Amino acid sequence: MSRYAAFVGRRFDTITLMTDYGTVDEFVGVVKAVVRDLAPHVGFVDLTHHIPAFDVRAGALTLARSVQYLPSGVVIAVVDPGVGTDRRAIAIEVAGGEGILLGPDNGLLAPAVAMTGGAERAVVLDNPEFHLAAAGSTFAGRDIFAPVAAHLCNGVELTELGTEIDSGLLLPSVVPLPRVEQGVLVCEVMWIDHYGNAQLNVGPADLDEEWGPGWGDRIRVQVGDHIRSMPVVGAFADLSSSAPGLVVDSYGMLAIAINRYSAAGEMTLGVTDQVILQPTADVEAPSTPVQLRIER
Amino acid sequence: MSRYAAFVGRRFDTITLMTDYGTVDEFVGVVKAVVRDLAPHVGFVDLTHHIPAFDVRAGALTLARSVQYLPSGVVIAVVDPGVGTDRRAIAIEVAGGEGILLGPDNGLLAPAVAMTGGAERAVVLDNPEFHLAAAGSTFAGRDIFAPVAAHLCNGVELTELGTEIDSGLLLPSVVPLPRVEQGVLVCEVMWIDHYGNAQLNVGPADLDEEWGPGWGDRIRVQVGDHIRSMPVVGAFADLSSSAPGLVVDSYGMLAIAINRYSAAGEMTLGVTDQVILQPTADVEAPSTPVQLRIER
Amino acid sequence: MSRYAAFVGRRFDTITLMTDYGTVDEFVGVVKAVVRDLAPHVGFVDLTHHIPAFDVRAGALTLARSVQYLPSGVVIAVVDPGVGTDRRAIAIEVAGGEGILLGPDNGLLAPAVAMTGGAERAVVLDNPEFHLAAAGSTFAGRDIFAPVAAHLCNGVELTELGTEIDSGLLLPSVVPLPRVEQGVLVCEVMWIDHYGNAQLNVGPADLDEEWGPGWGDRIRVQVGDHIRSMPVVGAFADLSSSAPGLVVDSYGMLAIAINRYSAAGEMTLGVTDQVILQPTADVEAPSTPVQLRIER
Repeated sequence: MSRYAAFVGRRFDTITLMTDYGTVDEFVGVVKAVVRDLAPHVGFVDLTHHIPAFDVRAGALTLARSVQYLPSGVVIAVVDPGVGTDRRAIAIEVAGGEGILLGPDNGLLAPAVAMTGGAERAVVLDNPEFHLAAAGSTFAGRDIFAPVAAHLCNGVELTELGTEIDSGLLLPSVVPLPRVEQGVLVCEVMWIDHYGNAQLNVGPADLDEEWGPGWGDRIRVQVGDHIRSMPVVGAFADLSSSAPGLVVDSYGMLAIAINRYSAAGEMTLGVTDQVILQPTADVEAPSTPVQLRIER
Repeated sequence: MSRYAAFVGRRFDTITLMTDYGTVDEFVGVVKAVVRDLAPHVGFVDLTHHIPAFDVRAGALTLARSVQYLPSGVVIAVVDPGVGTDRRAIAIEVAGGEGILLGPDNGLLAPAVAMTGGAERAVVLDNPEFHLAAAGSTFAGRDIFAPVAAHLCNGVELTELGTEIDSGLLLPSVVPLPRVEQGVLVCEVMWIDHYGNAQLNVGPADLDEEWGPGWGDRIRVQVGDHIRSMPVVGAFADLSSSAPGLVVDSYGMLAIAINRYSAAGEMTLGVTDQVILQPTADVEAPSTPVQLRIER
Repeated sequence: MSRYAAFVGRRFDTITLMTDYGTVDEFVGVVKAVVRDLAPHVGFVDLTHHIPAFDVRAGALTLARSVQYLPSGVVIAVVDPGVGTDRRAIAIEVAGGEGILLGPDNGLLAPAVAMTGGAERAVVLDNPEFHLAAAGSTFAGRDIFAPVAAHLCNGVELTELGTEIDSGLLLPSVVPLPRVEQGVLVCEVMWIDHYGNAQLNVGPADLDEEWGPGWGDRIRVQVGDHIRSMPVVGAFADLSSSAPGLVVDSYGMLAIAINRYSAAGEMTLGVTDQVILQPTADVEAPSTPVQLRIER
């Protein structure tokens, strides 16, 4: 394959990686080793390799949050419960050719593709000339995505890598939208971050749209059987001590947070938990501080 | 902002990172993505992203241990319980312009700055022209430190980035010094490393200075109610099997260690635990091997 | 030392790292910082830093699995229970000078060296001119391997780094081979990966060689007192739901696996566990699905 490296130009110099490989095994390192062997000029950005194993939804959301910040280049995204089945490996070109996303056709790439304006071209990576031969089962990251990404960085044309397909037929993602029921917003927890903030699938503009601009600055928040009135603030530090609130987080979404504490830990919140929002003008709701379990 | 990248030179080509972001979320990757977009020539050195959340002291000590080994370039250090408050984001120039440290003005940078000879110039990063606009709360690593670091690497002048301030007014760090009481040294555990070695805030020169050069080669070590006589040795392998000792570690400090075992695990030591040192010539102390809990 | 960087060429541009340092402390970052200071053109591939502390066998197997995929360059491998003893630090040249492996002389490098065709030259790294001076105990990664690797990348000759030695006298590795007893293969678990697949020390060619090509497509597998009949398949997805089988994994070895589940978790398998294989034509064996403990 290295005959290509000799005569083609350098189209991209960054490969961004996101996988569920973990970092205990050598998987990520071997993927990078294969790239560096073919395209030594390439640098890497690791978004994370700690997507929970086989959790396509979590991977899709992580990539969608990140994609607007990525430099021009190739993205390798692998969360793939269907490895070894007839699930296809695909490449999707976006943003006028500034980015090419590689991954399984299982919905993992779909929200990120939508965030960048939609798929412009797509191919199934079925040209084995650009793959490594495996000793046994195919390790898609090492044997398909790494060499394909390297060749793309070296200037190989997308359409040389396999059969062009209609991007409208790619598997869509199931990103949860909030449900509206008589002025009440039925949301869910999309993401618990490292600090325990629980991001919801709703932003402040959604509240304005639903409730009108005069809905106030507090919200009645119901999680399971617990009901609380929470302030809506623009920064974590604007929350008063130990009282949970709704912060407009750095992605512009509402997140349940406690200043310097883990809201998810204190309130036992998990991803996909239902959270019901309602203007406090409509109802009474107690504003109780959380009894913090951890002293800092 | 990218108009700068076009005409300025390449001043630095390395950015060193240290944060409490963890590596499960995409935070570190997004910081690097923002840098690569503005300054594609830059390479990264990750010291660690596993500083305990909001633990400024642990971060300050980690950076101080590392700074003497860093190449010329920019350091981004983020451990920031005050994110979103009026706590300032700062840049400090050190070592004749060979290094610029970026971080919150909360004492995190102070010991590293002292290690490199002190601050030469300092600015508050208050020029928004060099920041990214956030959709909601400011994510300082992504929105301030990453673009500022990239611009510094591209040759932008420090003083363009914000208001110059008196570096003497920056928040100092609380690095614990050992206390001397009638020939006894009251120390504390500064750091437990991956192997369970417990580094103290005292080096062999401190012992000589306090006790004179003839204090011997064993020390009476008191941790809580437990008293032991420990040898002082120059290498981990010089410790006899299962007996804890004081090793001059690779940073030149004394560390309580057990050869091939975790001293912290076996002796239940934690960061900030008090450790009292006294020459054994002064007192009697038993030299008991630890009853190892883990068989290897 | 930096006088060398000025006049020598660029021989290599990649350093691959594998250690038991973990990623919580700054150890890996400091090693890279030292390299970048001396050889700023070098990029890194991290295989893993999570080899269990002092587990030379696990490190040797990880490096052996990876080495065929590595680009030209230098490898730094550190898993070193004997740090500080008279255990030697060595460099081994392989593959016509395309690769140089650095590490302790404790068997860690031996299987990887064998995979690449054997040692061509070897030196003990005993020339202190190419080391850093440590403040206390030697931190071999930082003080010996990092500067030596950087100098090799800059073009310094192997033989300048220390005393040449007979590579036949290097410490060999204990890689476990399967034992044959009257047609029965007594194997062991070499590796449990991130997904819980348990790689054995035997490949399909070994079965053909031992049993002849007509041994069928199922195997009687004994682990402890448990006996099962398992299919042998070429891909994880070819396993039927919840029934464990033997997959020819991506390294060409047999692995006990359950499709989308952790075989090691469900069957309580650990590294070095004995696994006995026998053709099912010889004996009867029940084919029971595992009672899965985790619902997905």
